[in-house]
Amino acid sequence: MSAAFSFHVTARSGRARRGRMTLAHGVVETPAFMPVGTQAAVKGITLDQVAALDASIILANTYHLHVRPGDELIARAGGLHAFMGWTRPILTDSGGFQVFSLAGRRIVREDGVIFQSHLDGRQLSLSPESAADIQARLGSDIAMVFDECASGTCTRDEADAAMQRTLRWAARARARFEALSSGQVPDVPRATPGQAQFGIVQGGTHKDLRDRSIAGTVTVGFEAYAIGGLSVGEPPPVMYDIAGHTAAQLPEHAPRYLMGVGMPDDLVESVDRGIDLFDCVLPTRNARNGQLFTRHGPISIKNSQYATDAGPVDPECACTTCRHHSRAYLRHLYVAGEMSAAALNTVHNLHFYLDTMREIRKAIEFGRFDEFKREFLDSYSRRQPTERVTE
Amino acid sequence: MSAAFSFHVTARSGRARRGRMTLAHGVVETPAFMPVGTQAAVKGITLDQVAALDASIILANTYHLHVRPGDELIARAGGLHAFMGWTRPILTDSGGFQVFSLAGRRIVREDGVIFQSHLDGRQLSLSPESAADIQARLGSDIAMVFDECASGTCTRDEADAAMQRTLRWAARARARFEALSSGQVPDVPRATPGQAQFGIVQGGTHKDLRDRSIAGTVTVGFEAYAIGGLSVGEPPPVMYDIAGHTAAQLPEHAPRYLMGVGMPDDLVESVDRGIDLFDCVLPTRNARNGQLFTRHGPISIKNSQYATDAGPVDPECACTTCRHHSRAYLRHLYVAGEMSAAALNTVHNLHFYLDTMREIRKAIEFGRFDEFKREFLDSYSRRQPTERVTE
Repeated sequence: MSAAFSFHVTARSGRARRGRMTLAHGVVETPAFMPVGTQAAVKGITLDQVAALDASIILANTYHLHVRPGDELIARAGGLHAFMGWTRPILTDSGGFQVFSLAGRRIVREDGVIFQSHLDGRQLSLSPESAADIQARLGSDIAMVFDECASGTCTRDEADAAMQRTLRWAARARARFEALSSGQVPDVPRATPGQAQFGIVQGGTHKDLRDRSIAGTVTVGFEAYAIGGLSVGEPPPVMYDIAGHTAAQLPEHAPRYLMGVGMPDDLVESVDRGIDLFDCVLPTRNARNGQLFTRHGPISIKNSQYATDAGPVDPECACTTCRHHSRAYLRHLYVAGEMSAAALNTVHNLHFYLDTMREIRKAIEFGRFDEFKREFLDSYSRRQPTERVTE
Repeated sequence: MSAAFSFHVTARSGRARRGRMTLAHGVVETPAFMPVGTQAAVKGITLDQVAALDASIILANTYHLHVRPGDELIARAGGLHAFMGWTRPILTDSGGFQVFSLAGRRIVREDGVIFQSHLDGRQLSLSPESAADIQARLGSDIAMVFDECASGTCTRDEADAAMQRTLRWAARARARFEALSSGQVPDVPRATPGQAQFGIVQGGTHKDLRDRSIAGTVTVGFEAYAIGGLSVGEPPPVMYDIAGHTAAQLPEHAPRYLMGVGMPDDLVESVDRGIDLFDCVLPTRNARNGQLFTRHGPISIKNSQYATDAGPVDPECACTTCRHHSRAYLRHLYVAGEMSAAALNTVHNLHFYLDTMREIRKAIEFGRFDEFKREFLDSYSRRQPTERVTE
């Protein structure tokens, strides 16, 4: 176990858990949403703005930072926190997902993956060991194991093979992590001595494969467990079912992280199934495309109906965008191609996600998560019913 | 005279003036630099960030806002301040410069200019009267007269003709402004009752034309006087000479605004010649291109020499970018195409400009502007001497 890492469940409401996760760079109150900062930057806004939104932890990406600017450069700068000027916790994804979704031609072998950089085509490789080394150099608070991500449309045999390989890689990743932690790899600097490592459960939508993945991953033993390979195209009820099935079998004492999820209602549904941690590009990516989340559902700010709308995006929202600017102004900025459109929209969407998590945590503390969930799902629609789509 | 407008010179140091300009939405301490917010947005950052930089006044543009989203829409929103969510003073440029530099095919007639929108080619027109009306609807604190901007390479005869037309238009613009102010144009709403109107002196680099323009413009009579038609390609010494020659003949009691200027050393040289107000796109535009201003001159953050540079852009700078981030991180963001590169660079450059103006004001108050100027020009070089240009 990492000395710096701890997790305590402080309250429960049904299967929903209220917890406190202590990391090398600070405390994360769970359930928590982690804004995505792939390239050591949250797209659209500055880290000062991310901090002002009270995000307690952000993501960065091993694959992207290995490709550019390079983990050795970041290590020489003192690690990712010093390099970015971000003092709170950081989780680094291992790069498995990016290697299998973004990189050019790749060769998957038992020892690791050889692939082409999506930037310049140069040949690179990642393995359970090298991904652990890169994350040691980056000095994230949480390192993820390097996993094989089967595609959302793969066969059961492919899902099985990827899950089994992920299990074998998990054991190697943990061995390397422990070697790094105990100072047996002197040539790899560890920017954050108290780094924790999370395992990843795979197995697609096949419950028996998930079961075998859970058993194997827990046997290896990690500070916490992530559920990978969901939100890759399967219907939401399937995703909820597999997440719930998996979460229920993961150790009680460890945080559970549902990777890459999701829409606001996905967060509520998944907390209800015992999930503690989330990350997703939706609030930031959709902000840049003009989609803004409200308690009643998303709206598309570029829609002409907002051209003369003097009200805020969401009258119930306390974010600086809603307090200072009208829908009409946000639409103007978007249509005029002003960068501040992306910034203001991103502030609003991240505030919406982070505020939803604050409400979720409060509801669990008061033992009324069921009631919160019912109210949330009653008012939230993935499709804004009053919206006339004109462009 | 506008009831809301006043200007008092509070200290002098040589020809440099320290003043206080009171506008409908607040006080501007002069000499002042006004960040450019052409489309009702300062490019690269949010208005909250502009306010945090302590900008006391920003520019917006009549031409651009007339084209999109339209001044009538903004009037219905309660004027530009309400539309943008910006409570401090705003100066609107009249659109003359944009009509002559940006718009498509145009026909200049004595009554006004017919031109094509740069966005969609539709036919539009501006005249001294309509530019005043648009600015009344926008409700800026300071409206500029609609002027004819001769190109930087025009003949003396062309400069003369444009200057003379600008004079005739100035009289019409003032008459319309006064009619608007006294409620004689009931169909044009005035979003800011205490709006002031500034005249513009033209005449290119010809001192005798400038003299006639000054005399004519002052005879019409405005709350303040701007110097247009400079910083359009002439050498800096010529610009300083014409600015100084013009400023010396403008009324003592009125602010003097040198339009579109300039580089940091231009500001210092021009204050030394009696200028009170400036605007320029350089700090914001150059920020987006990776050029950052320092007390020793500009640096290009994309330069590879900064890849591993752990120091701030400018060790003497107190901006949030310099306090929180290294040159290496800023270079990474720029190279990786992250939007926050533009935001962080813009915060730094605007802080540099606004802080230079704060130092200028302090130097004048202490009667040591000459010393400040000497020190500034000794340390500042338009070309960073230590910079190796590698890309």
